[in-house]
Amino acid sequence: MFQKTFASDNNSGVHPKILEAIQKINIGHCVGYGHDGYSQKVIQKLIDYFGGNCDIYLVGNGTAANVIALSSAVRTFEAVICSSISHLYLDECGAPERFIGIKLYPVPHYGGKIKVEDCYPLLVGHAEEHRSQPKVLSITQPTEYGTLYSDEEVRALAEFAHQNQMYLHMDGARIANAAAAMNKSIKQITGDLGVDILSLGGTKNGLLLGEAIVFFNPELASATRFYRKQGMHLFSKHRYLAAQFEAYFENDLWFTLAQQANATAQYLAQQLQKIPTIQITQPVQTNAVFAKLPRKLISPLQEKYFFYEWDPSQCEVRFMCSFDTTQEDVDNFTNTIQQTLAALQLT
Amino acid sequence: MFQKTFASDNNSGVHPKILEAIQKINIGHCVGYGHDGYSQKVIQKLIDYFGGNCDIYLVGNGTAANVIALSSAVRTFEAVICSSISHLYLDECGAPERFIGIKLYPVPHYGGKIKVEDCYPLLVGHAEEHRSQPKVLSITQPTEYGTLYSDEEVRALAEFAHQNQMYLHMDGARIANAAAAMNKSIKQITGDLGVDILSLGGTKNGLLLGEAIVFFNPELASATRFYRKQGMHLFSKHRYLAAQFEAYFENDLWFTLAQQANATAQYLAQQLQKIPTIQITQPVQTNAVFAKLPRKLISPLQEKYFFYEWDPSQCEVRFMCSFDTTQEDVDNFTNTIQQTLAALQLT
Amino acid sequence: MFQKTFASDNNSGVHPKILEAIQKINIGHCVGYGHDGYSQKVIQKLIDYFGGNCDIYLVGNGTAANVIALSSAVRTFEAVICSSISHLYLDECGAPERFIGIKLYPVPHYGGKIKVEDCYPLLVGHAEEHRSQPKVLSITQPTEYGTLYSDEEVRALAEFAHQNQMYLHMDGARIANAAAAMNKSIKQITGDLGVDILSLGGTKNGLLLGEAIVFFNPELASATRFYRKQGMHLFSKHRYLAAQFEAYFENDLWFTLAQQANATAQYLAQQLQKIPTIQITQPVQTNAVFAKLPRKLISPLQEKYFFYEWDPSQCEVRFMCSFDTTQEDVDNFTNTIQQTLAALQLT
Amino acid sequence: MFQKTFASDNNSGVHPKILEAIQKINIGHCVGYGHDGYSQKVIQKLIDYFGGNCDIYLVGNGTAANVIALSSAVRTFEAVICSSISHLYLDECGAPERFIGIKLYPVPHYGGKIKVEDCYPLLVGHAEEHRSQPKVLSITQPTEYGTLYSDEEVRALAEFAHQNQMYLHMDGARIANAAAAMNKSIKQITGDLGVDILSLGGTKNGLLLGEAIVFFNPELASATRFYRKQGMHLFSKHRYLAAQFEAYFENDLWFTLAQQANATAQYLAQQLQKIPTIQITQPVQTNAVFAKLPRKLISPLQEKYFFYEWDPSQCEVRFMCSFDTTQEDVDNFTNTIQQTLAALQLT
Repeated sequence: MFQKTFASDNNSGVHPKILEAIQKINIGHCVGYGHDGYSQKVIQKLIDYFGGNCDIYLVGNGTAANVIALSSAVRTFEAVICSSISHLYLDECGAPERFIGIKLYPVPHYGGKIKVEDCYPLLVGHAEEHRSQPKVLSITQPTEYGTLYSDEEVRALAEFAHQNQMYLHMDGARIANAAAAMNKSIKQITGDLGVDILSLGGTKNGLLLGEAIVFFNPELASATRFYRKQGMHLFSKHRYLAAQFEAYFENDLWFTLAQQANATAQYLAQQLQKIPTIQITQPVQTNAVFAKLPRKLISPLQEKYFFYEWDPSQCEVRFMCSFDTTQEDVDNFTNTIQQTLAALQLT
Repeated sequence: MFQKTFASDNNSGVHPKILEAIQKINIGHCVGYGHDGYSQKVIQKLIDYFGGNCDIYLVGNGTAANVIALSSAVRTFEAVICSSISHLYLDECGAPERFIGIKLYPVPHYGGKIKVEDCYPLLVGHAEEHRSQPKVLSITQPTEYGTLYSDEEVRALAEFAHQNQMYLHMDGARIANAAAAMNKSIKQITGDLGVDILSLGGTKNGLLLGEAIVFFNPELASATRFYRKQGMHLFSKHRYLAAQFEAYFENDLWFTLAQQANATAQYLAQQLQKIPTIQITQPVQTNAVFAKLPRKLISPLQEKYFFYEWDPSQCEVRFMCSFDTTQEDVDNFTNTIQQTLAALQLT
Repeated sequence: MFQKTFASDNNSGVHPKILEAIQKINIGHCVGYGHDGYSQKVIQKLIDYFGGNCDIYLVGNGTAANVIALSSAVRTFEAVICSSISHLYLDECGAPERFIGIKLYPVPHYGGKIKVEDCYPLLVGHAEEHRSQPKVLSITQPTEYGTLYSDEEVRALAEFAHQNQMYLHMDGARIANAAAAMNKSIKQITGDLGVDILSLGGTKNGLLLGEAIVFFNPELASATRFYRKQGMHLFSKHRYLAAQFEAYFENDLWFTLAQQANATAQYLAQQLQKIPTIQITQPVQTNAVFAKLPRKLISPLQEKYFFYEWDPSQCEVRFMCSFDTTQEDVDNFTNTIQQTLAALQLT
Repeated sequence: MFQKTFASDNNSGVHPKILEAIQKINIGHCVGYGHDGYSQKVIQKLIDYFGGNCDIYLVGNGTAANVIALSSAVRTFEAVICSSISHLYLDECGAPERFIGIKLYPVPHYGGKIKVEDCYPLLVGHAEEHRSQPKVLSITQPTEYGTLYSDEEVRALAEFAHQNQMYLHMDGARIANAAAAMNKSIKQITGDLGVDILSLGGTKNGLLLGEAIVFFNPELASATRFYRKQGMHLFSKHRYLAAQFEAYFENDLWFTLAQQANATAQYLAQQLQKIPTIQITQPVQTNAVFAKLPRKLISPLQEKYFFYEWDPSQCEVRFMCSFDTTQEDVDNFTNTIQQTLAALQLT
């Protein structure tokens, strides 16, 4: 129990500064549900960080961030275009369909990224009432494969969306890792490029739990407070969400943590590349390393270090580095791989 | 900011032992989503506490506890009978209707409590497909008026439900206050009386955030893990929910905290009764005090101590005591009331 | 089989002129889904009938008319206020809750009618996101008790709705009977009084199946074609709905048929009043007669003429007259009642 | 207006025998909502036709047939696998997502047909609560391309479904055309091959409006009457649906009509094949002809005979023959094509 793993960056714990912020705010009483002065001050700080002309809501997890974000932008007969590998499409257990009542149109992906040309056909014949009407394009940055859309790619998708009266939503469960990798602010790689709504993750980068929904088009948020409550993510002790975000943005803690996770992933990739039977399958641009393992290695290794098979048919697995993963952790892990391979006579 | 208030028991903070438990579990890595050994150990402890033959799921707040609990028990054409003043009916912003797709049938209440005789008519003619079919009876213990169902009353409602192929759900957002008031275990006043599903609150009694759903009929929970995920309340860092509940049940912390809140409410009621222009309107059985105030007192007092008007037409307001409300806090509050009345020349 | 009954006006068949219209349109091919020239001509005729500045959609039944009408006017966190005895609340098997995801707030009724004073309290405290926000007031004209709102009453409810940023919806499943009873056009008792959306029934007054949704505020209908399709009520052979409505409005057929049903109900009431053990319980203003029967009469009479018990605790039953119910049918029925009473020695 | 077209088989009218049946049943009164003796007799006839051990419900259109059929078989966290070109996926405006709250997983198609091998990957990793759980495999017979699954193909899909605790649903909007093409009974190509639920179309083959849902596993239908009502497709004058189905199955009228449409499609294909610039793109196995037209022909021809472009990028269009389409209609159409081509100097 509590061994460092590479299964997911949400397997890590809470960064000490985040816990400290929670502790610090744990005094006296506050009116609930985000109406307290402290929460409002923090939200205003976040709004300022994102340039002032936006609206921000805190919720408890990424599923809620995505679903409540989209609730604000689509009506039930409208639809969201997203990649066929996206978390939104595959890993929310149908929450968007059930809670919003909408259709998701999956399109092909290229290392996790989608292309405008695959979205065009979904617009054909869509004036007709027989079809769910595409209203939002949702992309994940970094993608579920840890890869990055370039600024130009995001801009092109935003332009496509806006030209077709659609919004661009970005699932930024790991947006900090993207910004750190590009050495930019979160604003520079989201709203500045035309993103209309951002699900800004925190849990995977050191928060206890908490995500922010950033509406760069504040009109879109006119009813969000109702959708958040109806969507079961209005927390009474809201100040404890706010405190985490205050600490997270204090001195760009998010950047430091993400940068470290990214760097460790680079190191992990380097170490794995030294093992001839292992093959890195995706560009390592953030904190994920995808690799093909020898089939016989997978189960024995999972017993020692649990991780997810991404594409079982290809023996492709995913390793994630967290903010608190160290080079020593990587060394222990790659040593275990080497030993397991040796025991299996696979070297 | 952070002044002690009497608006709601969720205005209080987190009990130090709960924060300590969070701190203590903040080591290393854990597999996510409640599949970690620590979470499973805590869940098993809770199951044991409730007698072994039950199933338990942790979620983030009371709305989710109620909605996900009911998801497991009803189909969309079925319905839940509840009091017209219940939190479920009035204060979830329609989450049950939207997420489950069901109808709620409100029935009259008597100091927050419902009677079997008001539920009977809802069963008439209900074999027909024109009507939503009552499938769950939901009661709040203690009620939204802070009053208590007696054991006999709960048993009678459970019997009525079971005789009509319905389940009894108990919204126990403050169940600790009920159990403490009756000097019983939570099990004794829920499952032992015929309750099938319990929403067991923690946030209002010292947790950071967290509620448990207890299924005394474990078959009802066969799909709950899917409803929890689809219902957006499967948290990746689940151990931090588990840790809070472990501490909450350690040495019956829940009982100690609830008892203190209840005792303080008694003291508050006594102090208020000394003020001739204020009239206690509901029996003070747990940690709530409902009172009629002079109309002119309400706004000036709210400016100093925010609180909710319950029935504006009657000038009936609600004061709640929290686990950390002290007699000194009460004295400060009642002094402020006296001074405000004096300033208004209402004494 | 096929005996004339008094159970409901939907037990009757199709008026010959309606069937004739269906037959007449049964030629050649038409593009589907209401995009054919014939359907569009009929819709335009209906729009003209209602004054030009409105929008009209045909659907298959009353449940769909109500649900799709309301879909266009509310968002999921909003709510509809309606009478506790309304068809919308009681007899749609929860279709509004499931399909729209909204809450219905039932308010008390007086002979089927609701009063503004009972709606006011639902607006209190409703700026808060904890509560479903009332957005539509829905009334039934004539009511489920066959009674009529006066013009003044409708105007007052419309004014209340509009002053509170709400819409007034009228469930007019039997609107023809109301208009005929008041000797007015349908427009005069709906849009002219401030009704924003009308569910205009046809099935209960001689159509095979078909209802119209009339939006007096055409902006409300901007997305209705999508809601109709998603709501499963866009019929491919739409011309057969259109043909029925064309015939229904030709020479005010609707008026003639409704007038006859109303007149027959008056005659039925007169005949029933001659029976000392039977008591008329509601003003007979349209085509419904509500009466208290001797308890022992109910079952034996139902075996001969099926009808619905409305309030079993009061032995109150409902008799409906259809467009094709004749005085002879009434005589046969009341004779049967007399004979049954005699056989039971209840005269 | 009323010109014979080739846009869709739902552009045709009602077969005279169907209208006659409606006329014949138009006598006296009947209790509503399918509880009348006549409707029950017809339903029993249909049940007998399908072998006795099944349950059957009538609804108004194909969207409702599919959605209410699936409502009975899936819970909200479950999913339906279907082809990416299926009507269910593309052309219900998201009704399954909204009404049932489920996810549809689209898989590739081959001339409209899906293969087991494309469904397998959707089952991987699906014990986890993060994913919508496949519970139904839905296929269209004949497919949206007018092609036919062979008996072996249906059996293989049924076997795959059942081995994985899934049901096989068949969208049989044109099932009569499939059966006629194979010279078999509907039962032989559905329930006998392992289909669990059939949406049995009528509207596209001569009915005014009406579809049947056949549950070969009658346990699946235990709550269907509620889903039908809540799904807004319980019609009060149900006998008029029943009458159409009685006539439709009388002397296998469905077979005769479908056979004629199929034969006419063959004739149309032959005539089109004589035009060198036109290319048939799909096997003509039922009543649909898919063809590639010269790009410049499409718009001018649509002005004379409206039809749908299926794949605009390929200039692939769809022509459908109805039960009442004659060889003369085909000749007129192909002559028009020839003339238009000539005018465009495209021959």
